[in-house]
Amino acid sequence: MNCATLLTDFGLSDEYVGVMKGVILTLHPTATIIDISHDIPPQDVSAAARMIRAAFRYFPEKTVHVCVIDPGVGTDRHILAANAGGHRFIAPDNGILFPLLQEAAVETLVRVDNSDFFLPKVSHTFHGRDIFAPVAAHLLRGVSTEALGPPISLQQMVPIELSAPRRFPDGTLVGTVIGADRFGNLLTDIHHLDLDRLAPSGAPFEIQIRDIRLPGLSHAYGAPDAKRCLALIGSRGYLEIAVSGGNAHQCLDVGIGDAIHIRRRKATPSTQ
Amino acid sequence: MNCATLLTDFGLSDEYVGVMKGVILTLHPTATIIDISHDIPPQDVSAAARMIRAAFRYFPEKTVHVCVIDPGVGTDRHILAANAGGHRFIAPDNGILFPLLQEAAVETLVRVDNSDFFLPKVSHTFHGRDIFAPVAAHLLRGVSTEALGPPISLQQMVPIELSAPRRFPDGTLVGTVIGADRFGNLLTDIHHLDLDRLAPSGAPFEIQIRDIRLPGLSHAYGAPDAKRCLALIGSRGYLEIAVSGGNAHQCLDVGIGDAIHIRRRKATPSTQ
Amino acid sequence: MNCATLLTDFGLSDEYVGVMKGVILTLHPTATIIDISHDIPPQDVSAAARMIRAAFRYFPEKTVHVCVIDPGVGTDRHILAANAGGHRFIAPDNGILFPLLQEAAVETLVRVDNSDFFLPKVSHTFHGRDIFAPVAAHLLRGVSTEALGPPISLQQMVPIELSAPRRFPDGTLVGTVIGADRFGNLLTDIHHLDLDRLAPSGAPFEIQIRDIRLPGLSHAYGAPDAKRCLALIGSRGYLEIAVSGGNAHQCLDVGIGDAIHIRRRKATPSTQ
Repeated sequence: MNCATLLTDFGLSDEYVGVMKGVILTLHPTATIIDISHDIPPQDVSAAARMIRAAFRYFPEKTVHVCVIDPGVGTDRHILAANAGGHRFIAPDNGILFPLLQEAAVETLVRVDNSDFFLPKVSHTFHGRDIFAPVAAHLLRGVSTEALGPPISLQQMVPIELSAPRRFPDGTLVGTVIGADRFGNLLTDIHHLDLDRLAPSGAPFEIQIRDIRLPGLSHAYGAPDAKRCLALIGSRGYLEIAVSGGNAHQCLDVGIGDAIHIRRRKATPSTQ
Repeated sequence: MNCATLLTDFGLSDEYVGVMKGVILTLHPTATIIDISHDIPPQDVSAAARMIRAAFRYFPEKTVHVCVIDPGVGTDRHILAANAGGHRFIAPDNGILFPLLQEAAVETLVRVDNSDFFLPKVSHTFHGRDIFAPVAAHLLRGVSTEALGPPISLQQMVPIELSAPRRFPDGTLVGTVIGADRFGNLLTDIHHLDLDRLAPSGAPFEIQIRDIRLPGLSHAYGAPDAKRCLALIGSRGYLEIAVSGGNAHQCLDVGIGDAIHIRRRKATPSTQ
Repeated sequence: MNCATLLTDFGLSDEYVGVMKGVILTLHPTATIIDISHDIPPQDVSAAARMIRAAFRYFPEKTVHVCVIDPGVGTDRHILAANAGGHRFIAPDNGILFPLLQEAAVETLVRVDNSDFFLPKVSHTFHGRDIFAPVAAHLLRGVSTEALGPPISLQQMVPIELSAPRRFPDGTLVGTVIGADRFGNLLTDIHHLDLDRLAPSGAPFEIQIRDIRLPGLSHAYGAPDAKRCLALIGSRGYLEIAVSGGNAHQCLDVGIGDAIHIRRRKATPSTQ
C-alpha cells in the first residue's frame, strides 16, 4: 500500500509541503501522496481533528495519514503513531488524533522516538520535514508502527474536547456554529444521529438560529425559490445551514460560535 | 490509461477534493489525478465551461475529466458522461460540457444513472465523493462510458451560452472583458480567429478599451518601456489586455463586463 | 528517475499549472510531479531563487526542477538547463538559478534552443506549457541536458544579487527582513553561519529589531509564556523572528525591508 495523505496548517505559498513530499519520495519513490488540506487555520488543532476524522475512511486501507499542526515543535511535546480503523496515523501528541482514536478500533498506539527513521539531522523548527515525512515513508516501505517507539495507552494521550451540542431537560438540543465552507454554508456540531435521538422515527422538529425558524431538513442546497434559508445534513454527516443560490455566512446575521436550537414540535396535519 | 483530472468550485481549504481523490484511489490505486482548478467562483458554470474547453486537449488521450460545479446537487438534475475529442468527461447536466461538446467530435453521450458504479450510500449533498469520483475510477478501470446509463442526444443537454463578441454592420467587433488572471491580465471573449476574420491577411486594426487605443497586437507581455498597455493573444487563444511589468486590472480603469471595440484601420505607411 | 517539481508564479486559480502537468504526462505517463509553490509573488525572481535553492536538496537525486517565473516570455530572453548538485534544472535566464548555481557543483549548463523537444506550436505567451513542460518530460524520458542546446558558462548567465547582511567595522551585522510566512514568522537574510562567524563557539550576542532586544536564540516557536518575541533558526537555516503562540508580522511593528542588528555582547555570569 503506497498511499499517504498530508494535513497541515502550512499553506501552499511556502515550500514546506513540497519539501515534505520530496523527503517521502526520496525514501519511497512509488508513494502516492494526497493533500487533505494545508489551510487549517494556524495551530487550530480542533479543526484538524474534525477534518481527519471526517476524511480518513475515504482513502485506501492502510493509508498513512500525516497530520502536522504542531505549535509545540521543538518543545518536549511527543509524536504519536497509531494503527486504527484499518488506517495508519502520525501526528503530534496535542489532541489531533484524540477524537478519532476515541471512536475507531485502535490496534496500535506508540510514542515515536526511534530516530533511525528520522532524517539524519533533525531541526528544532520543521519536524514535518525531518521526522513526520521520513517516518511516513518508512511506514509505506513496510516498517511496522510498533518499530517506531514504545506503546502507550489512550489515557496517556493529550486529550482535547471538541464542541458538542447540549441536551436540555425540556428536550431542546443546543449546538454551535463551528465554521463556514467556501460556499458560505454554516457548519454545526450537531450530528444527524443527535437529530435522530431528539426526534426518532421522523418525528417533526424545528431548527432555530437567531430569529430564523426552519421546519425540519431539506434534501438539497438548491431550491425552487432562490435565497431560501435551509437546514440539511452536510457531507460530514452534521447539520448545516445554507441559503439556496446564496451564501448563508454572508446573507444571515450568524457567525462562528453562535447557538443553534433544535426543538421537537407537534406534528402538523400533512397537506399532501 | 490512468489519468483523471478534477475541476471544481470546492476550494482547497476543506477536505472535499482530497476525499474525492481518496475514493478514486481506493477503487483504482494506480490512478494519476491532476487538479485543473478548484478555485472556480462558486457555482460559476460558464467559467468552468471555458476552462475545461481550454485545458482538456493538453492531457493524455482517454483522460477522464471530472467537472463538479454542481449547484443542483441533490435535486433532479442529471449527470452526463461523454467520450469526445479522444477524451472522456463526467459533469452535471448544467451546461459545463455544452460548449466543449458543440465543438469536439462526440462519440458517446449518456445520462449517468447506473448506481452499480456509485458508492453504496449516496448522500444528497456531496455527489463529487459519492458518484463522480467512483464513476471516474470505474472508467479508469476499463468500464465503458456506455455502461453508465442510457444514451442521449446533444439536443437533450441543458445548454448554456457563453459570452461572445458581436459584429456590427460597420465592421466593428465588440467583445467583453470576462475575467482577469493572477497577473492582472484582462481576458476577453474575442478569439484570434475573430480577429483574422475582421482583418484578414494581417490588415491593420485598432483595439479600443475605455479611452485607450492600441494599434494592433504585441507579441509579449514584456516591453522595453515598462507600464505600457498592450493587447496580445493569450494562452487560450483569446485577446488579452496587459500592462508590461504591471497589472492591467489594477492600472487601467477597466472591469469585468466592460466592452472592448476592434475596428479595421487604414494602413499607415510603414516606418521600417 | 521520474520526479519533476514545479515552481511558478501562476497561482492555482487558472488552468495553467494543470495544463503543464498534462503536457508532461502526455509525453511521460509515469512522471511524478510535485508542486513546490505556485504562489511566488508575480515576477518575483528573487523569491523564487531563494525558494528553489532552499528546497531542491530534499527531492530524489536527478529530479527535474522546473521554475517558471518568466516576465520576459515571448521576448528574446533565453532559457537555461543545468545539471548541478545531483539535480536537474530548467528556468528562464533571468537570475532564478544564479544563486543556486553559484553554490552547487555545476556539471552542465546549456542554453535551451533545440525545438525538437518543444511542443510543435510554441505560443508567445505560455512557454511553461509549450517549452518548459515538454523539455522536462524529455529529460525524464532520458534525454540528456547536453542535447537541449549549446553549453554556456556561468559568466554568461543573467546574474541577480540576493539581499545579504552587511558586517560593520565594530562587528555589528545588519541584515534585512525579507518576508513573512503563513504563521507571521519574519524571515531574514541572516544565515546561521553568519551568526557563527560573528559569535564563534557559542559566544553571546544580542539581536535588535526596532526597539526589541533579544538575548540570543530560542530553540522552538513555543514558549511557556505566550506572546513572547523570539529569535530562532528557521527551516531554511536563516534567522527568523517569531512570537510564541502569535503572529510576529502582526504583533510587532516590523515590515519587509526593515533592518535587524546583531551585536556581540559581553558574557554575563551564568545563573545555572
